[in-house]
Amino acid sequence: MPTAYITAPTDAAAELAELLVAERLAACVNRFPCTSVYRWEDEVVHDEEIVLLAKTTDSAWGELVERVEAEHPYDVPCIERFDEDEMLEEFGAWIYEEVE
Amino acid sequence: MPTAYITAPTDAAAELAELLVAERLAACVNRFPCTSVYRWEDEVVHDEEIVLLAKTTDSAWGELVERVEAEHPYDVPCIERFDEDEMLEEFGAWIYEEVE
Amino acid sequence: MPTAYITAPTDAAAELAELLVAERLAACVNRFPCTSVYRWEDEVVHDEEIVLLAKTTDSAWGELVERVEAEHPYDVPCIERFDEDEMLEEFGAWIYEEVE
Repeated sequence: MPTAYITAPTDAAAELAELLVAERLAACVNRFPCTSVYRWEDEVVHDEEIVLLAKTTDSAWGELVERVEAEHPYDVPCIERFDEDEMLEEFGAWIYEEVE
Repeated sequence: MPTAYITAPTDAAAELAELLVAERLAACVNRFPCTSVYRWEDEVVHDEEIVLLAKTTDSAWGELVERVEAEHPYDVPCIERFDEDEMLEEFGAWIYEEVE
Repeated sequence: MPTAYITAPTDAAAELAELLVAERLAACVNRFPCTSVYRWEDEVVHDEEIVLLAKTTDSAWGELVERVEAEHPYDVPCIERFDEDEMLEEFGAWIYEEVE
């Protein structure tokens, strides 16, 4: 089952996480504060951001991506999918229940 | 080699991490503060939690899961396994030494 | 495309992240504060560290690892590679542009 790795600005992250859970596109979202380092106009900058890890299902994945793209303040947001190799069966069942 | 992704309440996380290392079920555990967003009795709630990333071996994986299930305060804890695609060989050797 | 999972001491992490971006070995690096739990001389210790998640390309991976090994203050640093199962196409294109 997919975990979505999404970065968001600090002032948009809580709302984005809430929307994914409220619309049943994710069972839960873990929000982590981080500092992002990247190149901007030939300078290396350090920016406060939030990483969201959203737990969802195969069949909700496509809609989650569309929703994040539509709501996200960046033109090209970081949205990556990582599938776990194994998980506690009851936890997987809970994700299904919450999302589908 | 597996990394375990485990969420835990803030007051139980340090002890759980320590137990996994002390009992040689993990070589090391990284603890990250996070805010978890999920649905509870038809409300979307935001809760402080800790994510543990525990580095372990194939053969210790089953016992690690059993131990976390036994000690964890939740009925259905989030326990997921992610296997890396490559790692520094000497780091993998250190994990083996610590766990096995 | 690979994400590198690297742990570093707090006083070396920002510089290491900046170097990877400045030398175009990573498009961006997310830095997360964490507490690491591990065994040291038969004691279980808890230490503040930073986890770096560096987004890079297949062809830059080998050089990124060499560079981290050369610059990292530990003899055996944690360097692991996790490949995503899917990503927003435009985000992948941006990583290529930044790194190659």
